[in-house]
Amino acid sequence: MVRVGDEVSNKQLIFRDYVIGSPKESDMYLTTGTIKLKVPEGSNAVLVKNLYLSCDPLMQFFMRKAEGPNGYLYYNPGSNLFQTMLYACDSELVICNFWVWVAKVLDSGHPEFKAGDFVWGIIGWEEYSLITKTTDTLIKIQHTDVPLSYYTGILGMSGMTSYAGFYEVGTPKKGEYVFISAASGAVGQLIGQIAKLEGCYVVGSVGSKQKDLNAALKRYFPEGIDVYFEHVGDKMLDSVLLNMRHHGRIAVCGMISQYNLDEHKGIKNLLHIGFKWIQMKGYTHRNYYHLYPKFLDLVLPYIKEKKMVYVEDIVEGLESGPAALVGLFSSRNFGKQVVVVAHE
Amino acid sequence: MVRVGDEVSNKQLIFRDYVIGSPKESDMYLTTGTIKLKVPEGSNAVLVKNLYLSCDPLMQFFMRKAEGPNGYLYYNPGSNLFQTMLYACDSELVICNFWVWVAKVLDSGHPEFKAGDFVWGIIGWEEYSLITKTTDTLIKIQHTDVPLSYYTGILGMSGMTSYAGFYEVGTPKKGEYVFISAASGAVGQLIGQIAKLEGCYVVGSVGSKQKDLNAALKRYFPEGIDVYFEHVGDKMLDSVLLNMRHHGRIAVCGMISQYNLDEHKGIKNLLHIGFKWIQMKGYTHRNYYHLYPKFLDLVLPYIKEKKMVYVEDIVEGLESGPAALVGLFSSRNFGKQVVVVAHE
Repeated sequence: MVRVGDEVSNKQLIFRDYVIGSPKESDMYLTTGTIKLKVPEGSNAVLVKNLYLSCDPLMQFFMRKAEGPNGYLYYNPGSNLFQTMLYACDSELVICNFWVWVAKVLDSGHPEFKAGDFVWGIIGWEEYSLITKTTDTLIKIQHTDVPLSYYTGILGMSGMTSYAGFYEVGTPKKGEYVFISAASGAVGQLIGQIAKLEGCYVVGSVGSKQKDLNAALKRYFPEGIDVYFEHVGDKMLDSVLLNMRHHGRIAVCGMISQYNLDEHKGIKNLLHIGFKWIQMKGYTHRNYYHLYPKFLDLVLPYIKEKKMVYVEDIVEGLESGPAALVGLFSSRNFGKQVVVVAHE
Repeated sequence: MVRVGDEVSNKQLIFRDYVIGSPKESDMYLTTGTIKLKVPEGSNAVLVKNLYLSCDPLMQFFMRKAEGPNGYLYYNPGSNLFQTMLYACDSELVICNFWVWVAKVLDSGHPEFKAGDFVWGIIGWEEYSLITKTTDTLIKIQHTDVPLSYYTGILGMSGMTSYAGFYEVGTPKKGEYVFISAASGAVGQLIGQIAKLEGCYVVGSVGSKQKDLNAALKRYFPEGIDVYFEHVGDKMLDSVLLNMRHHGRIAVCGMISQYNLDEHKGIKNLLHIGFKWIQMKGYTHRNYYHLYPKFLDLVLPYIKEKKMVYVEDIVEGLESGPAALVGLFSSRNFGKQVVVVAHE
């Protein structure tokens, strides 16, 4: 049992260099430093013990050279998110060893957080973190009567992505025909459940080897698709465009099939956007956090009443982080990938 | 001078068969019939003398076999617009010899129209038309103190397309960076003028032979593009996607580069939709006619004060119709293509 003021060992996962293409386990190594479990006198820093680490496909953009091919700044020129996240976790010197965590506050100089609080947000890949520069990316957990690991997913980023995607972007109505690609992923499985609860007709695809996507979609959607939640891209998107209905909506969360390609696949059926008055809209959870309380009001009761289920693929130990992360890109996980570094 | 009740000769342009690929002049022929200039006793038909015929790229979809490749119903399965337009102009037996006209009412059994009224809407390619089955697609012209030919374009379909595209789909704000492809076309030239009047930074492209579109866009939009009005598709769209700003909007009116291709070109940069939260939305004037009075309130004063100009490429005589129409697809026209069949 550690105490505030102790000097303890602190395992960290470090990237050797910028990653090229898909990440490999050998891109990371484990090192052990020490950390004093106390915020410096007079600072408004927060010192946390890290519990649950989230693994998400999006992380790859932060492992690559930011301005390079498929790097974060390549797609987000002028964005300061990358810097914000680096600052948030004191990681100027290492590449990308940060992502979404659930953590417990051990000591705090910040008025919004006190020892014993649970938080979720962007933290470094290590056992303990001193968060000094900003707390913009930390959220205090108000409801602790659900599994805390859920804040890495269903009650965190994936949850907000699903909520915003459904209610603010795709906006399916009761009885509408909804299609979801990557429907077993962290976001897809939630959107599917929300859509069912809202009375939509819902079909999802999961890493199908289906050859004729167009025929498959016609079979499941003889009347066409009203709303498509896009996580895949490529041939799936082309087939969906053929099968969209007039006034259809495509909510673009991501296109994972394209993230590691040097040259992206061309989409040929965009003419349908003009002819069928389709709206295709990209979005990010980050623009919708003003809705976070409303989101919790909706989802927490469903979770407690078991009307909504959430599958997590949990591995133990910071050492398991690289394999868990790499596994995402070969679909080794089943459900949301979480690494437990410490139990509360 | 013809009178109501006269039996007169009536020239018509007829399509020999469904068109394949781009239309050729030889796809049409001129024939002469007769017509009695009187609506049948007790009917609510309208008999009109046709004045100005509009030529638009969109017409090609109605020349092809509706369900065939690049035909109207191929892109609009289940739509009844094609049938409505056929019925509107009594053209069940011929293919596509109908489109937007300005006409003068000679006789009417319909309470909304009387002799002497000017109208615009979907009418057959002929000198006189008896419109028997529906008047859904006819609009009475309330303002005759502007050139009546304008109702084939700036005050008709192209005008409503531009208005809806600007105010309801692209929604550029004062100071935003606006890019318009096919900027000298019937729609593009209007959107450009509205955008200038609304205080936007506006750049348009016109059939450029520019090799490096990406570099050209970077030069004109060092800060990126907020709103793109899409009329072209292909490489232009791909280059625009690279140069869009966060929260950018793409209003898709059409993609003329793709209309005659057996296989459509692939768009490779759609990833940017997800990463930059771009909205890409197809639209048609047809969904916005509840705004027609509001549109006229905006545009008529601009036209009368010469704050808005509109270039028409006018040819004389129904005989000139096929060449004018075919010329559209090789960019032979300069400005909105109109055929004058009779002066008032």
